[in-house]
Amino acid sequence: MKQKLIGFALMLVGGAATAQSSVTLFGVVDAAISGFINKSTDRAGRTVTVSRHDLRNSGYNTSRLGFRGTEDLGGGWSAGFWLEAPITNDDGATGIANFSRRSTVSLSGDFGEVRLGRDHTPTYWNNSVFDPMGQVGVGANLLNSVGSISPGRDFKASTNYPRASNSIGYFLPPTLGGWYGQLMYSFHENTKYDPGSATPPGLNAAGAPNTGAVATARAGRYVGGRFGYASGPLDVAAAYAQDTTGDSYYAGTTDVTKTANVGASYDFGVLKLFGELARERRVRDYAVTSGASPGIDLDGYLVGFTVPVGPGLIRAAYSQVRYDLHTPALPNPKASKVALGYVHNLSKRTALYATVARISNKNGAALTINGGPAFVTNAGYTPGVATGYDLGIRHSF
Amino acid sequence: MKQKLIGFALMLVGGAATAQSSVTLFGVVDAAISGFINKSTDRAGRTVTVSRHDLRNSGYNTSRLGFRGTEDLGGGWSAGFWLEAPITNDDGATGIANFSRRSTVSLSGDFGEVRLGRDHTPTYWNNSVFDPMGQVGVGANLLNSVGSISPGRDFKASTNYPRASNSIGYFLPPTLGGWYGQLMYSFHENTKYDPGSATPPGLNAAGAPNTGAVATARAGRYVGGRFGYASGPLDVAAAYAQDTTGDSYYAGTTDVTKTANVGASYDFGVLKLFGELARERRVRDYAVTSGASPGIDLDGYLVGFTVPVGPGLIRAAYSQVRYDLHTPALPNPKASKVALGYVHNLSKRTALYATVARISNKNGAALTINGGPAFVTNAGYTPGVATGYDLGIRHSF
Amino acid sequence: MKQKLIGFALMLVGGAATAQSSVTLFGVVDAAISGFINKSTDRAGRTVTVSRHDLRNSGYNTSRLGFRGTEDLGGGWSAGFWLEAPITNDDGATGIANFSRRSTVSLSGDFGEVRLGRDHTPTYWNNSVFDPMGQVGVGANLLNSVGSISPGRDFKASTNYPRASNSIGYFLPPTLGGWYGQLMYSFHENTKYDPGSATPPGLNAAGAPNTGAVATARAGRYVGGRFGYASGPLDVAAAYAQDTTGDSYYAGTTDVTKTANVGASYDFGVLKLFGELARERRVRDYAVTSGASPGIDLDGYLVGFTVPVGPGLIRAAYSQVRYDLHTPALPNPKASKVALGYVHNLSKRTALYATVARISNKNGAALTINGGPAFVTNAGYTPGVATGYDLGIRHSF
Repeated sequence: MKQKLIGFALMLVGGAATAQSSVTLFGVVDAAISGFINKSTDRAGRTVTVSRHDLRNSGYNTSRLGFRGTEDLGGGWSAGFWLEAPITNDDGATGIANFSRRSTVSLSGDFGEVRLGRDHTPTYWNNSVFDPMGQVGVGANLLNSVGSISPGRDFKASTNYPRASNSIGYFLPPTLGGWYGQLMYSFHENTKYDPGSATPPGLNAAGAPNTGAVATARAGRYVGGRFGYASGPLDVAAAYAQDTTGDSYYAGTTDVTKTANVGASYDFGVLKLFGELARERRVRDYAVTSGASPGIDLDGYLVGFTVPVGPGLIRAAYSQVRYDLHTPALPNPKASKVALGYVHNLSKRTALYATVARISNKNGAALTINGGPAFVTNAGYTPGVATGYDLGIRHSF
Repeated sequence: MKQKLIGFALMLVGGAATAQSSVTLFGVVDAAISGFINKSTDRAGRTVTVSRHDLRNSGYNTSRLGFRGTEDLGGGWSAGFWLEAPITNDDGATGIANFSRRSTVSLSGDFGEVRLGRDHTPTYWNNSVFDPMGQVGVGANLLNSVGSISPGRDFKASTNYPRASNSIGYFLPPTLGGWYGQLMYSFHENTKYDPGSATPPGLNAAGAPNTGAVATARAGRYVGGRFGYASGPLDVAAAYAQDTTGDSYYAGTTDVTKTANVGASYDFGVLKLFGELARERRVRDYAVTSGASPGIDLDGYLVGFTVPVGPGLIRAAYSQVRYDLHTPALPNPKASKVALGYVHNLSKRTALYATVARISNKNGAALTINGGPAFVTNAGYTPGVATGYDLGIRHSF
Repeated sequence: MKQKLIGFALMLVGGAATAQSSVTLFGVVDAAISGFINKSTDRAGRTVTVSRHDLRNSGYNTSRLGFRGTEDLGGGWSAGFWLEAPITNDDGATGIANFSRRSTVSLSGDFGEVRLGRDHTPTYWNNSVFDPMGQVGVGANLLNSVGSISPGRDFKASTNYPRASNSIGYFLPPTLGGWYGQLMYSFHENTKYDPGSATPPGLNAAGAPNTGAVATARAGRYVGGRFGYASGPLDVAAAYAQDTTGDSYYAGTTDVTKTANVGASYDFGVLKLFGELARERRVRDYAVTSGASPGIDLDGYLVGFTVPVGPGLIRAAYSQVRYDLHTPALPNPKASKVALGYVHNLSKRTALYATVARISNKNGAALTINGGPAFVTNAGYTPGVATGYDLGIRHSF
């Protein structure tokens, strides 16, 4: 149950309270005892094991604290805000230091909703909604488009995954017979110099004489959308985005990440089935030069299910991801992950849960359990299997 | 409408709720699409244009989140607190990381109010209250006493503008027939060493042997006041402060900024008129030495008006500022700004707004639109006109 | 009185509200004008005085802002959370940046309570509960086990004083006829390498080739407990902990701080008496090598009393502490502190207070008033007496 902070005037009028004057304080405090074991082997078959046991946050739902509210403007219009902070309740180190989970102001009407600020990107949602594990905890799927494939080979394509700042979002109204959708444009907020050529009076971004400096132009911009259909037991959605992850104003080059994914779930009652296909392409709009690293592509999929058992829920997921390094001399890394969990709901707000997960790395991939330690990768050792568990409690308010 | 968090016990007694047990959660989430264009020209008449388009916060009202409350102590006395944080809702990067907007505890009675903590300085208020733009957004007036006049020539006279920490404030009671007023003293919180001469046993601020080190003595102290009269359509106030912006304990020198301003507004009903005069003097209490930079003085004024139009408000302001560099070889920079805006209130809490502003710089001034990029100033270019716009929504709670 | 944020649905049903849906917003805003004077003398009898006058927070109660709540799960079970942030209301610099005061999620039942996250350590409580000054403000006792004895001679034995992160706590139920108690285990969260020897394939903590690097193994772990009995006017409790403050995985050494304290209070009605004995032992589980600094031990005690006077409370405390440097050539530093204060309660929530305190240092100890400046210790000067005062207001909500 969400807690609401009631307007003082309203309280005095009692039952006449309406949604227009409510501010909701909400949050999740989720703590788990978690463990991780990573095994690497060398050519002689010797194994080095890396392990750690922690008290962690966010094993089942991400710990957070937020404030949100709506105001009825009449005529079918409403305004609203949503400020949501991540918190690290295991060590208390992160309070409401930022609202990086969501920070928006909205105007809604028959036309839908326009939302300004920082929010999830359209292309993130399928990775989360169609994962029985919700892309949280040790069981989170592998389809996310950030992280390190192996030491020195990062797949950090975008600062806009899973969220983008400085964005304008548009959402279809909830009156379209099950069809839903959203578009997002995120400002890059880079300064433009005109003229900005490399010869005088060209000047660099700092306004200083341009001595070989490179002014970024559109890096940081995100344009994407997601459309779906949900009716009865079925939910299916597809998303696509172009994300400018780097560019050179003077060299005239642009690096764009093109993300596409499609996911679906179907609830048979005794069992709910989940599936997703995901693809990422790194594109540079000019011929890859000898010195530049080619982009790394990702292809992945997920299948999973949940089974309700009284007040509990069994969750299972399998995800697989392959990376194309575009480097003929190197094998393309790939990894698969299986996750199994049980959630026992003590109430709507409070649940106990247990999750186990296992990642198998091949061809040099060194993917680790979400939050766990790195593999040993030096001295001829090859990363192999990473396993992890969460044993925790989730309390929401 | 402000939201209040009602005491549990009070709720059970229903309508008997009084102010004594209320805690109010309040805030503003303001987002705007903003743009900036700065033009510099060289002696040959060639122009370099710097531009940027952002999603920004605080175009009409400053985005914030706060907690405040009062307790009725009986006998006309009350206690209260006010904790108010700035937030950056465009990118979510700043949550409730600090209460730098206001952080006070108060004791009030017939005598007035004593307030301890961090608060606006008396000399700030006229710059804000008598600006139709409220010194916020692209249209904010030029009379503030911090910022860069031009690259390398900062006018950062004070860390105590617009607020001071570690302060004791006194406010006249609201029972004086329209007269109002406040005094503020801010502790410098510097350590004093006695003896603290430059010879042994003189010691520097760290308690280490004094090898030419200089211990600051009163830098950071602010002493000021503001007095005014508000009755019917008229509001007029004057403020003055001495702010110790730097000093040398061992050299016996002190840098003081003396600020004076006077402002007024008169509401004719169809139009409300605003005006302000502002002056800043940087004083060093000994002869300016050859090596030391002389202080920069500021003189400025503002005129403006607002016109209510149904649920909307037209706002216009013109401000002009001149700096005296006290350097005969250099012309004294000056700048003027014109700002025009319209606010459309959808409700008391929610408004749409549009503002445009234009700054003209002369004699080397390089003042930019509030939040915008810097001018190109190198290679013989002279800063000229800066323009900007805000197109946004303000939602308060 | 604590403020509670009431659930919206509950409000409409009026008096049927129960604890299960409440979230409580609570806090303290405490500000004081404080002063400090430290006097050092050299062999010729010359004195250097260090002084400072501040506006400070937390003179009587520590300033804070928090959110907490409980949910009734039925059958005698309940879940709860507690997120409490320190705030610096004198300068507004610290908002809800972290929940370092407490950040826990709990499950309670007939068996007691299991609490996960960051919380006070068992060994901290006696230092606070049995100090008439609550270990806050200028009068705080000397028995805390962190801080600097003198420049270059820190007594920072533990990052787990007064709180530990990543902990599992267990609390006895409040149904044991006055007996109470708690246990705490704090995860060290260090990564383990197996094999982790100093020779290949030994690898350091970063997974890089081990070139003399030392991987810590159990540093950060805290294991402790506290048990007591409170009935009528009597309250007595003892606590003990072992805290791994440093170790070397490769060298096979471990530094452990062993803390023991016992405190008691007895309320005679017209006067409440307080007392505590405290002991800290730094133990290294191998012979102290020539290069390593031996641990510093602490022995201390406190006696004090409070006397209620109408709406006020007189508070007095004397504490003394001796350090054993285990260095025969050096005298063992010692210090004593006397503190006297008066609290005048304007209401349950609001109080005015005044406190004075005086520390006498001997044998090179340089203990300062809580929050005050350092002594002058250079050039043959010996730290002597430190005095301080708080004159403030505490407002809670």
